[in-house]
Amino acid sequence: MFSTITLTTDFGVGDGYVGAMKGVVLATFPEAAVVDISHDVPPHDVAYAAFVLWTASSYFPRETVHVCVVDPEVGTSRRAILLEGPSGRFVGPDNGVFTCVLNDGPRRSGVEDSQGPGKTGFLEPMVVEVPHGWRAYSLTDTDYWRPEVSETFHGRDVFAPVAAHLAGGVAAERFGPRLDVVTVLNLASPASDGTEVQGRVIHVDRFGNLITNIDASKVQPGLVEVSIGGAVISGISRTYAEGDGLVVLVGSSGYLEVAARNGSAVMELEASVGTPITVGSPKAGQDGPAGSSSSV
Amino acid sequence: MFSTITLTTDFGVGDGYVGAMKGVVLATFPEAAVVDISHDVPPHDVAYAAFVLWTASSYFPRETVHVCVVDPEVGTSRRAILLEGPSGRFVGPDNGVFTCVLNDGPRRSGVEDSQGPGKTGFLEPMVVEVPHGWRAYSLTDTDYWRPEVSETFHGRDVFAPVAAHLAGGVAAERFGPRLDVVTVLNLASPASDGTEVQGRVIHVDRFGNLITNIDASKVQPGLVEVSIGGAVISGISRTYAEGDGLVVLVGSSGYLEVAARNGSAVMELEASVGTPITVGSPKAGQDGPAGSSSSV
Amino acid sequence: MFSTITLTTDFGVGDGYVGAMKGVVLATFPEAAVVDISHDVPPHDVAYAAFVLWTASSYFPRETVHVCVVDPEVGTSRRAILLEGPSGRFVGPDNGVFTCVLNDGPRRSGVEDSQGPGKTGFLEPMVVEVPHGWRAYSLTDTDYWRPEVSETFHGRDVFAPVAAHLAGGVAAERFGPRLDVVTVLNLASPASDGTEVQGRVIHVDRFGNLITNIDASKVQPGLVEVSIGGAVISGISRTYAEGDGLVVLVGSSGYLEVAARNGSAVMELEASVGTPITVGSPKAGQDGPAGSSSSV
Repeated sequence: MFSTITLTTDFGVGDGYVGAMKGVVLATFPEAAVVDISHDVPPHDVAYAAFVLWTASSYFPRETVHVCVVDPEVGTSRRAILLEGPSGRFVGPDNGVFTCVLNDGPRRSGVEDSQGPGKTGFLEPMVVEVPHGWRAYSLTDTDYWRPEVSETFHGRDVFAPVAAHLAGGVAAERFGPRLDVVTVLNLASPASDGTEVQGRVIHVDRFGNLITNIDASKVQPGLVEVSIGGAVISGISRTYAEGDGLVVLVGSSGYLEVAARNGSAVMELEASVGTPITVGSPKAGQDGPAGSSSSV
Repeated sequence: MFSTITLTTDFGVGDGYVGAMKGVVLATFPEAAVVDISHDVPPHDVAYAAFVLWTASSYFPRETVHVCVVDPEVGTSRRAILLEGPSGRFVGPDNGVFTCVLNDGPRRSGVEDSQGPGKTGFLEPMVVEVPHGWRAYSLTDTDYWRPEVSETFHGRDVFAPVAAHLAGGVAAERFGPRLDVVTVLNLASPASDGTEVQGRVIHVDRFGNLITNIDASKVQPGLVEVSIGGAVISGISRTYAEGDGLVVLVGSSGYLEVAARNGSAVMELEASVGTPITVGSPKAGQDGPAGSSSSV
Repeated sequence: MFSTITLTTDFGVGDGYVGAMKGVVLATFPEAAVVDISHDVPPHDVAYAAFVLWTASSYFPRETVHVCVVDPEVGTSRRAILLEGPSGRFVGPDNGVFTCVLNDGPRRSGVEDSQGPGKTGFLEPMVVEVPHGWRAYSLTDTDYWRPEVSETFHGRDVFAPVAAHLAGGVAAERFGPRLDVVTVLNLASPASDGTEVQGRVIHVDRFGNLITNIDASKVQPGLVEVSIGGAVISGISRTYAEGDGLVVLVGSSGYLEVAARNGSAVMELEASVGTPITVGSPKAGQDGPAGSSSSV
């Protein structure tokens, strides 16, 4: 039986919270192999967790059970859920942490980033139908929880034992009723007017690279000009080591990424999650060589 | 054979020290499953380790071997010990890191926090009898150590191989002679005069929550007023998301905890480990709704 | 089959990169046990990784596969390599990360630290013959890579699957052609004039201890005087707890180390990686007791 259970939390590793979850998993299902994805999600940053979980979980065997606990509303009426789909099985709060997993990327199919008044803002939670290919369940059967449940630590008392039972062979429908809708964050797709694509930064990584929600497969390499945070960068580079200063390249998840050769793009640009980025064709007579960049 | 070995240290994960311990464990007992609890204990902070180890280790199967190495006196005459008891098996220095494990909580049974002159101060080490239900051994048999022992790294050369042999089936009494006494930190129990309980902050977690040594099961929910660091907080909340500003709630280990809604209690209060906290009945006519708080 | 695969990277644990590598390993070889050595190597710091990997990997069973990805030139013509030798099997970029592993220490046999003009500077990369006892291979056979290879993440797409196949039983020579030379960093051996040894700091650990490249087995204990960063320290201490202020002792890897009792040597001295350290005999009439120190 395949028994890998991954953990993604905002608990840090200085306290005993992660260890307690591992203990519960092993007490429930001793054959489990517990694998850390990340415990350094910034506290309560659901969008950050959504992106990190997707970039990592996509590469695991699909039998894997992934637990994600970034859960500022723990103990309230927010639901606890279990998802089964083409990229694996997922257990955690129904607050948007599974947004990128459900959409296989930092995007929301078919919805452009041009919201009118009263619409859900970028990264705000919204309730949508469970995507095709996925099944969602509400975790309600307390038989699979720890006997006493702390209102402040469902990671240990609900999600860890449920994940262990699931990895140990209990069928998903045993944990609670099927759901038709789940909560996702509004990761609107980039807007396009035919000549330009307007996207956003959706993650800043350890190296200061700015990862965007612009699918690189839809952009012509070498024929673009990228504007972000007051800088204009021409062409798409192939590696971090190419070019000088700021470069745009195809990130390892297939989305456009802004990096700085021997530096940190986030430090050089005034940018953060949500910052707009525009990809267009260079104006006539201005198309420089791949990888050249200029700050304006 | 159950073969989980957990590690709790102050080594950080930027150096090779933790990896060296894992290597020795696997070289000694290849079937071992090594599980990280925490390596981010602040350097030399024995009290911090004692709390973290307890919060995590309590949830593991009792066959688990827990290694804890926060060991500023490594290489001196401080003893190396092995403990066996109701919550597991433990290996590390005899300097107080097992205090909360031995007492099943951040407390010392039967001793109130009202020390006269000449008494052991809060968190200072003291020698006590091994608690009922526990057996302690001094690690003296060098057959179970690495052939060469560095005076500065017993984690790798003494504790890791002993833990691996223990998990691999060697009986506890083989590692050295039985002990009658062990070292614990003075985590005095809260003092009570019948109307008020006087406790202390014993841990500050990643979220800035202040965890106290006041057992929540002994406090009437909703009927209390809590004073800490110049603030007065009325009532006990059920979740972090309840109320505004500062809240008091029952932490996930069963002890009273002070948190800040959408913030950090440790940043809002002048508090740290050792800060006194008083829990009493609100004065007549002043009992507000659960979760209300006021700074004074 | 022994199936431990260790990971050492500069990816941090806040992003999904490490998780993605673990996922690929498990998708390729489900029986693998993935063990973290460190992901907190400072970004792009190849020398730091070289030291950490050596201090940890030496203690693992020699069947272990160690993956090290600190790879600023990813996607360029730098080679990807596999090494097999007396201390294990290693997979990563050919940029010097395996320097200390290949030399079993922070040194380069037979070459003193006295470079003339035009010579390779301290810690700069240089190409050398594969040391005796080691075999090196260039990773070129794309059958063992992921089907699509990101130019920016060979850790996930090349090194992780190669390591998993290697641990799973594929012979080293299947991954690509044998190599005669590899890249190492210039970790020149300390210079000695018969009375004094001139070494350098080669690592600063979490506790602020300064680890040098001076092999302690070649120094007479107790009969030395150490000069570093403006301080003179007499004698070699046995433990961190001995003496006051700055102490010199035999570090856990067998090299001289400068530490500060209850403090941080790196904070007290003007020192960093590369800082010279001199070990000599005390001048007549000046030999103090072991562990005494003075700042001048």
